Amino acid sequence: MSLLLTLFQETPSEAAKVLEQVNGDMGMLWMLLSGILVFFMQAGFTLVESGMTRSKNAVNIAMKNLLDICVGSISFWLIGYSLMYGDTSNGWFFWSGLFQGEGADLFFQTMFAATAATIVSGAIAGRTKYTTYIIFSVVITAFIYPISGGWQWQGEGWLTKLGFIDFAGSSIVHSVGGWAALVGAIMVGPRIGKFVNGKVLPIPGHNQILATLGVFILWLGWFGFNGGSQLAWGGADAVGASNVVLITNLAAAAGGLGALITTWIWYGKPNLSQTLNGALAGLVSITAGCGNMSDIGAVMAGLIGGIIVVFSIEIIEKKLKIDDAIGAASVHGVAGVWGTIVIGLWGINLGEHADGTAIESLFAGGGFHQLGVQALGALAYAVWAVVLSFIVFGILKATMGLRVSKEVEIEGLDISEHGSIAYPGKRVREIDEDR
Amino acid sequence: MSLLLTLFQETPSEAAKVLEQVNGDMGMLWMLLSGILVFFMQAGFTLVESGMTRSKNAVNIAMKNLLDICVGSISFWLIGYSLMYGDTSNGWFFWSGLFQGEGADLFFQTMFAATAATIVSGAIAGRTKYTTYIIFSVVITAFIYPISGGWQWQGEGWLTKLGFIDFAGSSIVHSVGGWAALVGAIMVGPRIGKFVNGKVLPIPGHNQILATLGVFILWLGWFGFNGGSQLAWGGADAVGASNVVLITNLAAAAGGLGALITTWIWYGKPNLSQTLNGALAGLVSITAGCGNMSDIGAVMAGLIGGIIVVFSIEIIEKKLKIDDAIGAASVHGVAGVWGTIVIGLWGINLGEHADGTAIESLFAGGGFHQLGVQALGALAYAVWAVVLSFIVFGILKATMGLRVSKEVEIEGLDISEHGSIAYPGKRVREIDEDR
Amino acid sequence: MSLLLTLFQETPSEAAKVLEQVNGDMGMLWMLLSGILVFFMQAGFTLVESGMTRSKNAVNIAMKNLLDICVGSISFWLIGYSLMYGDTSNGWFFWSGLFQGEGADLFFQTMFAATAATIVSGAIAGRTKYTTYIIFSVVITAFIYPISGGWQWQGEGWLTKLGFIDFAGSSIVHSVGGWAALVGAIMVGPRIGKFVNGKVLPIPGHNQILATLGVFILWLGWFGFNGGSQLAWGGADAVGASNVVLITNLAAAAGGLGALITTWIWYGKPNLSQTLNGALAGLVSITAGCGNMSDIGAVMAGLIGGIIVVFSIEIIEKKLKIDDAIGAASVHGVAGVWGTIVIGLWGINLGEHADGTAIESLFAGGGFHQLGVQALGALAYAVWAVVLSFIVFGILKATMGLRVSKEVEIEGLDISEHGSIAYPGKRVREIDEDR
Repeated sequence: MSLLLTLFQETPSEAAKVLEQVNGDMGMLWMLLSGILVFFMQAGFTLVESGMTRSKNAVNIAMKNLLDICVGSISFWLIGYSLMYGDTSNGWFFWSGLFQGEGADLFFQTMFAATAATIVSGAIAGRTKYTTYIIFSVVITAFIYPISGGWQWQGEGWLTKLGFIDFAGSSIVHSVGGWAALVGAIMVGPRIGKFVNGKVLPIPGHNQILATLGVFILWLGWFGFNGGSQLAWGGADAVGASNVVLITNLAAAAGGLGALITTWIWYGKPNLSQTLNGALAGLVSITAGCGNMSDIGAVMAGLIGGIIVVFSIEIIEKKLKIDDAIGAASVHGVAGVWGTIVIGLWGINLGEHADGTAIESLFAGGGFHQLGVQALGALAYAVWAVVLSFIVFGILKATMGLRVSKEVEIEGLDISEHGSIAYPGKRVREIDEDR
Repeated sequence: MSLLLTLFQETPSEAAKVLEQVNGDMGMLWMLLSGILVFFMQAGFTLVESGMTRSKNAVNIAMKNLLDICVGSISFWLIGYSLMYGDTSNGWFFWSGLFQGEGADLFFQTMFAATAATIVSGAIAGRTKYTTYIIFSVVITAFIYPISGGWQWQGEGWLTKLGFIDFAGSSIVHSVGGWAALVGAIMVGPRIGKFVNGKVLPIPGHNQILATLGVFILWLGWFGFNGGSQLAWGGADAVGASNVVLITNLAAAAGGLGALITTWIWYGKPNLSQTLNGALAGLVSITAGCGNMSDIGAVMAGLIGGIIVVFSIEIIEKKLKIDDAIGAASVHGVAGVWGTIVIGLWGINLGEHADGTAIESLFAGGGFHQLGVQALGALAYAVWAVVLSFIVFGILKATMGLRVSKEVEIEGLDISEHGSIAYPGKRVREIDEDR
Repeated sequence: MSLLLTLFQETPSEAAKVLEQVNGDMGMLWMLLSGILVFFMQAGFTLVESGMTRSKNAVNIAMKNLLDICVGSISFWLIGYSLMYGDTSNGWFFWSGLFQGEGADLFFQTMFAATAATIVSGAIAGRTKYTTYIIFSVVITAFIYPISGGWQWQGEGWLTKLGFIDFAGSSIVHSVGGWAALVGAIMVGPRIGKFVNGKVLPIPGHNQILATLGVFILWLGWFGFNGGSQLAWGGADAVGASNVVLITNLAAAAGGLGALITTWIWYGKPNLSQTLNGALAGLVSITAGCGNMSDIGAVMAGLIGGIIVVFSIEIIEKKLKIDDAIGAASVHGVAGVWGTIVIGLWGINLGEHADGTAIESLFAGGGFHQLGVQALGALAYAVWAVVLSFIVFGILKATMGLRVSKEVEIEGLDISEHGSIAYPGKRVREIDEDR
């Protein structure tokens, strides 16, 4: 609320009523536009995931991302919103009945649910049955994401009451998606040819320019993702949301540079796909703290996020021998935890303790209090996502199976799962020559 | 207008004047931003059309879409706006002189005219002369689209007076474009190799990932297309436009699912290009009714639209033997009619009859009144578009010819019509080897 | 400022204070959204530059564009903003200390700095060392662009005091970038195979559809680039910014048509890559004058810009034998000068002379006064950019070298500079066959 409005509050004048009305209208405009930007992130995920994997599975990737927005829009409207923002609750589970959200608010929140789902699709690319993926997409958008999201964003959840801070969802959206992706990657197993005789082989993507465009689209959409999480515009909210967008960009830039420099030192050359992952990790790293971070703090958070992600991808692939096809667990899960915890290290304006004293982060002299809360929250989302994903993928594995046959995998999922290929040019030329 | 503003109307206070000013300013911002989103749909059309057709014609597709926005911007500014929104009229033809529009309003409306034109280019891809297309693009943006658009959106047109509802243009934009596309596809004839010895052969596109990106961009732009058609922001308009965007997304999601499921049942596999068409059909299906539909009604409208489009594409191709290269007549024409008619089936808040009683749709107990008006409007736009397109394409066919030579078509239009190819990589490699 | 607000100024009422507050908030929203649009231009540049050059250097192009936004975001925040908008100044150099910008303003201005840098990358594509490019990118975003930008946009600079007009940066951004690109192209020398035995050989790009998408993205972003340069929203500013967006689109459309027709007459066929350059040239041509041009004036400015750019590209390549790989010097430099000068020819509302008489452009009967000022400003930016770029590239050439080895250039920069290729499909297929 603006200071001006506050002055008018006690005996609201006509002018104060106008200001309140207009602030509400501007806030709705900002949330709607932000939701539109977040929607576009689905296109970004499609390009990153298809560009970083092989062309024989590109149709499957597109179908999974389309499914996420289609299923997510319906399931979150039907049930998810109510499970996340409903009234009846013990602080852990909320509920107000079916079809509860509306307007710009439901639109904006729906796009977050679809994002959580779509993070998973990349990690398990190239070998997972489409039917399996559909069911998981329904479950994560209708149950897994909204239930745990309510813990913090409903406003009366147990994490909110503990003082946990996750402004736009480093943990709530990204690490939930990232940990689900990791569990999926483990349970579905590695792609054929990834780990051969103890060696880890690269399976390069098929189009790094599409992947780059995808990252630019994600970066663009993130301005709505983080900025829109201000949930209002006008007075201090306008200044606040603008600052959120500014430091979101700084963190992304620092993350990109962090990964670029790290790969240059470590691999000997500045690597494109890791720089792209670094920019995304920078974005994830500032998502929780974008309302509680100085600009220098944001740059540091992003820079470290961009460095972490390079090592995390290497460790998950080479040490843990898990085949996460595009590094989703590192970009969204690991950087999501880092983005949650960094608030406890050097976050600002963290609120007040019950006794009225200011809550400070560790390096602001506030000790370990907030750091502990942040770690607890990050842990809670990780445990929730891992356990629920393990149960759901486990049931699917025991019943319908997670994985396509070896023949289908080698041929590519596009033909057997969807009956078409992404780039039919060659075949067309052959048909031409026959005529 | 907001309730608050209404209260101030009789003796407008200073605060009321401020609210009126700000509402106007916010409305202009929303229309301008919506127009920017609609502009981006041209990129979406380019990608869908080129991705769903063959690479040897991709430059031609790009040149046609560029032409649409270039020609449409100039011709609608010069003459089209006045023909659509001019003052002097008998309810059928409006006119106020040249160069009548301005600012955000002209900008927004221009993008609609360009959209109507660009729908045509996909259907006749792969065999149509560029010169022919230029002339048709001028005629549709300067005359065909604006004249019939005025019947409803000028506010004093004959369809408005009948109580016809087409909020954002299922009929006015999409079915006009779709029927013109169908007439064009019939008159220019099928591509060589499409219908051979009574068999219908597939001519697959060359890049389904670009087509997918194109659909995401169109979906994104549609939030402006439909939402911006509120033409205002502030108070009830802010709530209304937000709801328009929300249900536009729900209908698109339902349309995608409708087509996905239909193809799975019918073809045995969930098909990407039909799912993309289904999402677009869902969008077209809610375009007329997005201001007069409940969220459940929008989901049903989109779902059915997504199912219809699959069958419509099959019927036009296999039964009617018309070669609509990307299914434009089905996506925009057939779904446009469905989107217009569905308002008469289960639309809400349809206004009042002359005697003050509420107008209701069929399933709301209102009988066939509104359904008849909607059917009449859909028919009027279909007849107008078919007759005018037939005349224009007929004159072009009789004079300069519609179609390139057989040799040019087989080689691809890009080389002979534009002197370059979309992907010159192979040739470059050969040059390299010579050096 | 709105008229309404002006009326309230002397004894500001509560309502007037509300209007002032809301206008400020709406202005912030518009600048933030505009900055988001301008950010997306980086994706457009990546696609245009990679699509118009060869696939063996596409990773390098992506890494350069990523670098521009990463480095530009950090350096402009750290130092550039203060050098451009600082307080302490003699009219030529401004400074207020490190880290001076904030919020939507810094965000918006940062995107302009990144744009100036990224213009250079295309011209010198295919043969320039990545290390060299990094240093130039830092220098242009931290020093070259902001110092000269302050001459006009700081508000107290020497060009502002002369009455120079450059609303959104035809000279300040585009021609500075374009002239730096030209100097870079000259100093790094032509690509191998461009000029052979006195013949000028074409080196076609590898993906004209990506280039087309890139131009649509740039066109989209330009609405923010020009429109956001109003720096405010509300009342006359809302009308002004809307008009800016409208005429920006008209100029782009006219520029595209200008180049299309020119190539048709000159080459015999309407050419795609030149039409794309024409649309961009139309945009550059209206960037300086978009706040001081009638709609007809904008169409003429864009049309002529689109014609000029075709000839300029030919002259630079064929007469001057300079290898500007994507025509950046013509699109941004030459059209930037044209866009600056056209204000002196038929600009409107140019302000007042010291004696209170209206300043008019040449064709409005105002004589050569404003034309001279515009020419002086365009010259000043050209001299500044050429001299500074010559110094920086000269030092780099003398120390670390500008250019990769002949072997690296022929193989493509992607492998040796970045260790990966843009489209690894072929290799993957070979690996598959070995399994």
